[in-house]
Amino acid sequence: MKQRVGQYLMDAVHTAGVDKIFGVPGDFNLAFLDDIVRHDGVEWIGAVNELNGSYAADGYARIHGLGVLVTTFGVGELSAVNGIAGSYAERVPVIAITGAPTQAVEQAGKYVHHSLGEGKFDSYQKMFAHITTAQAYITVDNATTEIPRVINAAIHERRPVHIHLPIDVAMTEIDIEQSYEVAEAPEQDVQRYIDMVAEKLKSASQPVIIAGHEVNSFHLHDQLENFVNHTHIPLAQLSLGKGAFNEENEHYIGVFDGKIADDNIKDYVNNSDVILNIGAKLTDSATAGFSYEFDVDDVIMLNHRYFKMNDTIDNDVTLPNLLAGLNTLDYQYEGSAPTFEKADKPDYELSDDVLTQATYFNMMQEFIGSNDILIAEQGTSFFGAYELSLPKEMTFIGQPLWGSIGYTLPATLGTQMADSSRRNILLIGDGSLQLTVQELSTMIRYNIKPIIFVINNDGYTVERLIHGMEEPYNDIHMWNYKALPKLFGGDNVAIHEAKSSNELKQVFKDINDTPDQMHFTEVTMKWDDSPRKLRDISKAFAEQNK
Amino acid sequence: MKQRVGQYLMDAVHTAGVDKIFGVPGDFNLAFLDDIVRHDGVEWIGAVNELNGSYAADGYARIHGLGVLVTTFGVGELSAVNGIAGSYAERVPVIAITGAPTQAVEQAGKYVHHSLGEGKFDSYQKMFAHITTAQAYITVDNATTEIPRVINAAIHERRPVHIHLPIDVAMTEIDIEQSYEVAEAPEQDVQRYIDMVAEKLKSASQPVIIAGHEVNSFHLHDQLENFVNHTHIPLAQLSLGKGAFNEENEHYIGVFDGKIADDNIKDYVNNSDVILNIGAKLTDSATAGFSYEFDVDDVIMLNHRYFKMNDTIDNDVTLPNLLAGLNTLDYQYEGSAPTFEKADKPDYELSDDVLTQATYFNMMQEFIGSNDILIAEQGTSFFGAYELSLPKEMTFIGQPLWGSIGYTLPATLGTQMADSSRRNILLIGDGSLQLTVQELSTMIRYNIKPIIFVINNDGYTVERLIHGMEEPYNDIHMWNYKALPKLFGGDNVAIHEAKSSNELKQVFKDINDTPDQMHFTEVTMKWDDSPRKLRDISKAFAEQNK
Repeated sequence: MKQRVGQYLMDAVHTAGVDKIFGVPGDFNLAFLDDIVRHDGVEWIGAVNELNGSYAADGYARIHGLGVLVTTFGVGELSAVNGIAGSYAERVPVIAITGAPTQAVEQAGKYVHHSLGEGKFDSYQKMFAHITTAQAYITVDNATTEIPRVINAAIHERRPVHIHLPIDVAMTEIDIEQSYEVAEAPEQDVQRYIDMVAEKLKSASQPVIIAGHEVNSFHLHDQLENFVNHTHIPLAQLSLGKGAFNEENEHYIGVFDGKIADDNIKDYVNNSDVILNIGAKLTDSATAGFSYEFDVDDVIMLNHRYFKMNDTIDNDVTLPNLLAGLNTLDYQYEGSAPTFEKADKPDYELSDDVLTQATYFNMMQEFIGSNDILIAEQGTSFFGAYELSLPKEMTFIGQPLWGSIGYTLPATLGTQMADSSRRNILLIGDGSLQLTVQELSTMIRYNIKPIIFVINNDGYTVERLIHGMEEPYNDIHMWNYKALPKLFGGDNVAIHEAKSSNELKQVFKDINDTPDQMHFTEVTMKWDDSPRKLRDISKAFAEQNK
Repeated sequence: MKQRVGQYLMDAVHTAGVDKIFGVPGDFNLAFLDDIVRHDGVEWIGAVNELNGSYAADGYARIHGLGVLVTTFGVGELSAVNGIAGSYAERVPVIAITGAPTQAVEQAGKYVHHSLGEGKFDSYQKMFAHITTAQAYITVDNATTEIPRVINAAIHERRPVHIHLPIDVAMTEIDIEQSYEVAEAPEQDVQRYIDMVAEKLKSASQPVIIAGHEVNSFHLHDQLENFVNHTHIPLAQLSLGKGAFNEENEHYIGVFDGKIADDNIKDYVNNSDVILNIGAKLTDSATAGFSYEFDVDDVIMLNHRYFKMNDTIDNDVTLPNLLAGLNTLDYQYEGSAPTFEKADKPDYELSDDVLTQATYFNMMQEFIGSNDILIAEQGTSFFGAYELSLPKEMTFIGQPLWGSIGYTLPATLGTQMADSSRRNILLIGDGSLQLTVQELSTMIRYNIKPIIFVINNDGYTVERLIHGMEEPYNDIHMWNYKALPKLFGGDNVAIHEAKSSNELKQVFKDINDTPDQMHFTEVTMKWDDSPRKLRDISKAFAEQNK
């Protein structure tokens, strides 16, 4: 079979499960875009800018398993660097494809636009090497080996990869002997490590599992729950990875976030004699500035490409293999564990008073539904939302390790595009919204219908709490947020505002009454109000910077 | 004298001429921002996002001589990468300061937010090394040597530098023995090269100078004009560097842009027997795809850090030294040269018909004034505007080498902030505006008053002309552009629209009648209309990609 390299690449990503391609046109990718828009299996989603496109591809990949971003050389790919780095940090597989000048132009060292004007063409590829798990320079000769290699790397490592695709190569027809197929991840013998864990558990009087984001990245929810169900080991989640475990499971004890965790969770975890860290990273934002009281050297680390127990370290073993191994383990915990106290009991009174952060999240607990995708921006929204109790089928998306404000609005473009049948709820604040606001236009353009709540509290609240409560650098300029959808062509978007719990209650009702519509709600709260977790973590961050 | 490192750094950039600092807060820079907002000589300008901030710092530097951008670690600095790379390519000195985690956090390899979560802290610095001319990791011990070194490098190379500033270092008091002073650029003996040029000119029958953007970067306008005035050598400019030469000078022959130049210029330049390339780069966008007919190996290259004549190459010599040397040269050209045909004669008739691109730029020629700064976005705006004839005191800003769409709106924030007394006119199109639209909010917030013209022609016209005239990937979503200023809090912005030359004429009158106001004009033109230069260059770009 003869195909252009561009067609082969689109067939390959489609085989890997992708049906939407995010990106921005540029003259070094235009001819390749023809092979995207003509492909029956994929749809082109034009983002307004490349950073936003990279966030959208990340959001799409978190739900769909793999995302693709297409940009042009230099100006395009470098605009996306922050988004791709976030995907790297949080283990989200995104294929970043750069349409590049022809090989002839490169070999002649020509001073073309979007280059640094010095005849070098490899600088951007070298920059991407720091934030991607694999990189490929595609040629006519290597296309059918290099494209499969990097797609497989993205899938197996759950991390972004970079493809440098000279536009002449994309347009060249080649012989395809075999279409791309997703390679199985290699099985590894992990028995030795499982035996070590089993031996340790034998003497355990208070074991605990700390689960985290890699479980989400590798979609190992069922495997993890099976393991817990047969071993009865109590499990705490980190906020970095909320959603890794079914919160309705009887062995779930809640979120562990260091010294600011509820006392019963904190006491149990800090005093555990066997801690299994499964796909989790004990970051500063997840642990209120590393404020756990156990010795991290005693923790059994079961991460992707990182098993560690005492002096035994393996940097090759994969998380899926480790979890498969754990599921063969013969052990059952018979002791007691803290009971998870669901936060879903309403604890507020309706009134016309100014809405508080506490009431907002209490009410949100009632609003969210079983199959929703809840996306929470790294600010007041995330730190309020990670206390919510989630039904088993719900998906929670935050970005607490990378923590790039502005991420979630474009990410919601991606999550909603990944599955239009599920209700997407975005919780974001004004400061963050401003960074990437134009992607609201793309939501409207492609007629998707997320539910968006924007907290208007006049500034960068998370920064205020860390340092400079009333400093001018934490102020933002006031916008008329409610006018945004209409300006972006969204005549059918339902616009709401809520300044009190009574008003918010009515907004929830209106949203539930008209589900087949995008809803955009401005929620006004006091500039100095904040969720309690954010107040506590901000103190830890301020301390860490001294 | 005792000062915090942050104070010393602010004193230093202020000594170097900076009075506005652009940036976005983040917890790793907050305490340092205190030293910015408390400094009497500088003002903090909060950008809405970091890419926009980097464009603003670039625009400020083009007018003011040096710009500063402050971001936070990871998410902030990586969002700015594309803007800083553009400053590198086009030789604009911007000091990119990253507020970073403390040295203690770094040395412990902690998994902090905004890191890649693997305990490494040098990845971003390594990425910046590709797009900056000098880099520094500031410590308490090296602050008073490294900060001067990189600021001087920015000034002498007219390129960005990167400063990695751990927040604990910024807050530490150190002994300052000597305040920063701008180092003089070293003088170099260039006599040998000047003699070679003189020898060559002796036999010249048709010499020409091609001048470009480095003359703008180094502010060598007077030196260049002196050289031309005493040698009478005809001078052509590139579009990359328009403004390098006084277009009212009698020896100016016009813009040379390869095969699409006016015949008299093209014939003269292509048949010149001595071509002095002064601070210019013969890029694809400046020469319609390298379509000059002379042999580039015969050109005498006088660039910054690059003198080349025949087999003689010097990669150390500076452009200021070369121009100083040229001004000692004893030569006068006695031959004839093409006469520059000013484009400033109106060549249109007022009507109510749909405004054309040709008429728009013809009318713009009448509107622009002697001391204006004209900023033209890399699309229809730039390719129409570079044909305009500029009065001597005018400044023209484009970005044709880097060519990052969306650059000019935030850049105008910077250019206007650099000199509030001059009228700034921004010409931009809808596709580009959408990428960075939120910086309009910052213009309104800080009450600056540029004149903005947005071409609404429903798509990425420059891309359409290169490839995919009617393809969906070149479409954009229609916005209500005129509603933008009010949404961003700009109640005092004058809003105009022009769909015909009659309407545009009235808009010009209104603007001139009320100069003390920001003006925002939506100019509607046909989706498939374009300036002639853009049509011609697009063909060359399409050819280059085959």
